[in-house]
Amino acid sequence: MGSVLTNPLRVGLRQERVIPPQCLVIFGASGDLTHRKLVPALFELFRQRRLPSEFAVLGCARRPWSDEEFRGKMEEAMASEVAEHRVAWEQFAAGLFYEPVDLEDPPSVVRLGQRLEGIDRLRATRGNRTFYLSVSPNFYGSGCRSLAAAGLLSDPSRSRVVIEKPFGRDYGSAQELNRVVQTCAQENQIFRIDHYLGKETVQNILVMRFANTIFEPIWNRNYISSVQITAAETVGVEERAGYYESSGALRDMVQNHLTQMLALTTMEAPGRFDPESMRNEKAKVLQAARLANEDEPWKCCVRGQYGPGGSSTRPIAGYRNEPGVNPESTTETYVAMKLFINNWRWQGVPFYLRTGKRLPKRLSEVVLTFREAPVHLFDAAGGAPTPNQLILRIQPDEGAEFKFEVKAPGSGMRSRPVDMAFSYDDSFGEPSDEGYVRLLADAMLGDPTLYTRSDEVEAAWRLYTPLLELIEDAPSQLPVYPYEARTWGPAAADNLLAEDGLAWRRP
Amino acid sequence: MGSVLTNPLRVGLRQERVIPPQCLVIFGASGDLTHRKLVPALFELFRQRRLPSEFAVLGCARRPWSDEEFRGKMEEAMASEVAEHRVAWEQFAAGLFYEPVDLEDPPSVVRLGQRLEGIDRLRATRGNRTFYLSVSPNFYGSGCRSLAAAGLLSDPSRSRVVIEKPFGRDYGSAQELNRVVQTCAQENQIFRIDHYLGKETVQNILVMRFANTIFEPIWNRNYISSVQITAAETVGVEERAGYYESSGALRDMVQNHLTQMLALTTMEAPGRFDPESMRNEKAKVLQAARLANEDEPWKCCVRGQYGPGGSSTRPIAGYRNEPGVNPESTTETYVAMKLFINNWRWQGVPFYLRTGKRLPKRLSEVVLTFREAPVHLFDAAGGAPTPNQLILRIQPDEGAEFKFEVKAPGSGMRSRPVDMAFSYDDSFGEPSDEGYVRLLADAMLGDPTLYTRSDEVEAAWRLYTPLLELIEDAPSQLPVYPYEARTWGPAAADNLLAEDGLAWRRP
Repeated sequence: MGSVLTNPLRVGLRQERVIPPQCLVIFGASGDLTHRKLVPALFELFRQRRLPSEFAVLGCARRPWSDEEFRGKMEEAMASEVAEHRVAWEQFAAGLFYEPVDLEDPPSVVRLGQRLEGIDRLRATRGNRTFYLSVSPNFYGSGCRSLAAAGLLSDPSRSRVVIEKPFGRDYGSAQELNRVVQTCAQENQIFRIDHYLGKETVQNILVMRFANTIFEPIWNRNYISSVQITAAETVGVEERAGYYESSGALRDMVQNHLTQMLALTTMEAPGRFDPESMRNEKAKVLQAARLANEDEPWKCCVRGQYGPGGSSTRPIAGYRNEPGVNPESTTETYVAMKLFINNWRWQGVPFYLRTGKRLPKRLSEVVLTFREAPVHLFDAAGGAPTPNQLILRIQPDEGAEFKFEVKAPGSGMRSRPVDMAFSYDDSFGEPSDEGYVRLLADAMLGDPTLYTRSDEVEAAWRLYTPLLELIEDAPSQLPVYPYEARTWGPAAADNLLAEDGLAWRRP
Repeated sequence: MGSVLTNPLRVGLRQERVIPPQCLVIFGASGDLTHRKLVPALFELFRQRRLPSEFAVLGCARRPWSDEEFRGKMEEAMASEVAEHRVAWEQFAAGLFYEPVDLEDPPSVVRLGQRLEGIDRLRATRGNRTFYLSVSPNFYGSGCRSLAAAGLLSDPSRSRVVIEKPFGRDYGSAQELNRVVQTCAQENQIFRIDHYLGKETVQNILVMRFANTIFEPIWNRNYISSVQITAAETVGVEERAGYYESSGALRDMVQNHLTQMLALTTMEAPGRFDPESMRNEKAKVLQAARLANEDEPWKCCVRGQYGPGGSSTRPIAGYRNEPGVNPESTTETYVAMKLFINNWRWQGVPFYLRTGKRLPKRLSEVVLTFREAPVHLFDAAGGAPTPNQLILRIQPDEGAEFKFEVKAPGSGMRSRPVDMAFSYDDSFGEPSDEGYVRLLADAMLGDPTLYTRSDEVEAAWRLYTPLLELIEDAPSQLPVYPYEARTWGPAAADNLLAEDGLAWRRP
C-alpha cells in the first residue's frame, strides 16, 4: 500500500490537495472542543467535498457512549447546521463512531487498536490515522506513550498525533514533553496546533510580505520604528477558571498566539514554502527575540487583572468573583510587554505585545509604525506629519489598513493623515474557513507547515522564561494591577509605551 | 511704501498667507477664460475672505465696454453663483472695472497706466498689479513689451505677469519668447501658468512622495518597472478648432500637463519647499528625460486622430468633420509615447505618456507598476502574482489606489490581487479649490512655486523636439492613425506597449 500521506510538495502545491483515506481519532470526544470546533470543521470539509469517501471519525473518551449516542450528541450540538444540511449530515454521521477509551489503561488502548482495524475494514480507511489529543495537557505525554506502546504510532507514513495547546507550561516542561513525544513518534508525526495559524489573516501576513514587492524593502529597522501586536478579548474567564487560574494570559495567549503573529511578522523569507523551510525561519527569529530587559524583566512587562466594571444595570463581575477563581488570585488576565529581536533586520525596533480579557473590544491586529519622514517639507495638520502605519487586521474586520499623509485640500501645502483599507469581507465575502477547518485538513494531509515544531515551541517558552521565573519566585516584583472591566488594561501598561514616547493604538 | 509682495517664505509657510492689496488686470477680458474661470475663481477667493478689501479687477480688451457692461457680462455668465450669493456678489462686483485697451497701441497702454493709478486711489491698491495675459499666444511677447514700455513692469516687487499656455510652440519659439519677456521683466515677475499644477491631486503627488516614509525607498528603478501617465478626454475639439488645428495633442497636452505630472512624479526631493528649490528639481529631471528613441522617434511615438463614432442614434462627428477643421487635417487628437529618464533614480524605467480626445472616459492618472516579486513562494490566482500598482488618480475620483496581493480565502496558499483606495471625496468632501483659485491666489501672493520657470518650459519643449521636427519635416514617418470616437486610441498605441510585454491600463 505504501505511503499515502505523501509530502504535499511532491503532490504539487499547484493542485488542490486531496485528503487521503483515514480515520480521525479524537481523544476527549466528550469535551467542548469536539462538538464546538472539531466535528463542525470536519462537517464543513465534508460539505466542501474535501473528505474522501474512505473516511471515519472515532470519538474516544471515558464515557460509555455508543456510536449512536455520540452521533446524537454531535447532532444536538450542531442543530442549526444539521437542519440546514440534513442529507449531507446523514451521510457524514454514518462515518462517526465512538469507543470508550482510557488512555492510562493499556488494555483499553489495545481494544482501541482493534476497533480501528474494524473501522479500516468497514470504511476502507487503510490504516491511516490522525490522533487528536483534545485532553487535559497532563495527559499529552502519557497519551502518546500509550499510543506508541500499543503500536499505533509505529508507521510514520500512516499515523500522526495532533496535540492541543498548551504545549508545556514553561521552558523545562516543554523540553520534557518534547522529549517524551519524540520517543513515541518522529517529529514529522507530531502536530502541535495553534489555531491562530489557521486564520486566513494570520496566513495572509506571509502573503502580504512575500507576494508583494513593495513591503519587503521597507520591512526592517531602517523604516519601521515600532510594532504593536494585540489580541484583545471582551469575554472574561467564562467556564475555564480551573485551567486559567494556573495558566494566566502569558501562558494562555502570549506564548502561543501572539508569539506566532510575532514570528510571521518578523521572520525572513523562507527559501521555499514547505514545512521545514517555514519552521526553520520561525524558529530562527524566535531564537533571536529577547525581552527588552532580560535581567530586570519587571521593567518590560506589566500584568493586570480585571476588576468589576460595566454599568449599574449591566454589572460585570471582577475576575476574583468569577466562579472557580480564588478570591485572592494573582493570575493575570492582562499582560503587556516589550521585546527586541536581535538580528540584522530588527535590532533596536521595539515590539510591544498585549493581550487581555474584559477589554472594550474584541480584536487582534499587528500594527507596524514607520519612521517619520527625515525632512518635513510641508506643514502637517497637527505639527509633524503622522508616521505611516500599516495595520494587519487579524480579527474581526479581517483585512489591512494603511495610514499615510496626503495634501489637505485648500490653499497652502499642508498634509493630513488618511486611511486606505482592504477588507476580506468586501473583496471575498464572509470568510468561510474557520481556523480548525484549515488546520484539521492540513493534519490529515500530513502537512505540518502551519503547526509548531519542537524548537519553535521551546524558543517561545525560553523567550518568556525570565518573566515566568519572576512570577514564580518573586511575584511582588511583577504585581498584578487591577483594571476595570471594559477598559484597556492598567495604566502601568500605558506607561510602558509612554517611556518610549509612544502610545497603544486605541482602535 | 516698500515691497508688500514679500517672499512667502519670509511670511512663513505656517501662517495662512495673506494676499496683499492689488489690482488684477485681465487682458482678453472678453474671452471665455475670464468669465468661465478667472472671475469665478476670484469670486470664490472673495467669498473665502482671502482677498483684501483693497482689491480690484480691471478687465481689458478691445471692446468698448463700460465698467457696468463688464460687470453685467460677468454676472450673466455666473448667474447661478451670483443668485446664490447675491450680497457677496454686490460687494465683489463693486471692485470690477473695465478699460478698453489695445496692447499693440502704445497710447492705449499709457491710458491703461493712468486708469490703474485712478484705481489705486479709489481702491487703495497701492500700485501693486498682477497682469494676466489671457490673449492669443501671438501677443504674449508684444504684450509684455508694451507693458514694459509703459513702465508698468518696472518695479519687480509690485508687478508681475501671468502668461497662459501655450508658452511657445517649440523649443526655438519658447527660447525666443523667454528672451523677450525676460527683457521686459525679471524671471520672478513671470508666472507661466499650467492649470494642472493647481489641482489638489497634482500637488498631492509631492505630498504622497515626501510626507510619507514608505514611498520614497521604493520610488526608483530598483522597485518600479514602468510608469504610465494618462490624460484622457471624452470631449472633441469643441469650439477650439482654430487654435487646435495648429497645435494638436502633443503641444496642447503633453508638453505642459503630462510633462508636469511626469516631473512631479520623478523629481528628487527639493531641499526646501520654496519656488527655486522646487523648480530646480523639476528642471533637472526634465533635462534628464529623453524620448525612448531619440534618433528614430517614430519608433517611440504614435499619433492618432478621432474618426466618427458613437451609436446610430447618437453619432459623434469625426475630427475632420468638426467645424473649422481642415477636411484633410493631419493634426493629432491623440498621442502616445515612450520616454526614459537617464538618471540614477530612473535609468531603464519606461515612462508611457498618452492623451487623447474622444476617448471612452475622462480621466487623468499616474500609474506606477512595481517589479514582480523575485520569488513566487505562493500560488497566484492566474499564474504569477499581479505586480503591485500604485495609482495616483488626478481626476475624476480624486485620490489614490493601491493594488497588491493577499491570501485568497480557502485551502492552500494562493494569492489574489485586491485594491485599497483613498478618495478625496470620502475623506474631505467634494474638493472646492478649483485649480485657478489656487493659482490666481499664488500669483497675487507673488509665489511662483506652482508656475513654470523658463528653464523648465524649455526643457519640456526640447524633450519633444525630435517629434515636432519629424511632424514638420517628414510627417509620413509619424502618421496620424484614425481611431473610432469613444475608443482608446489607435491599435498602434497598444503595440507600443505590447513590444515591451505591457498593456495600457483600461480603467
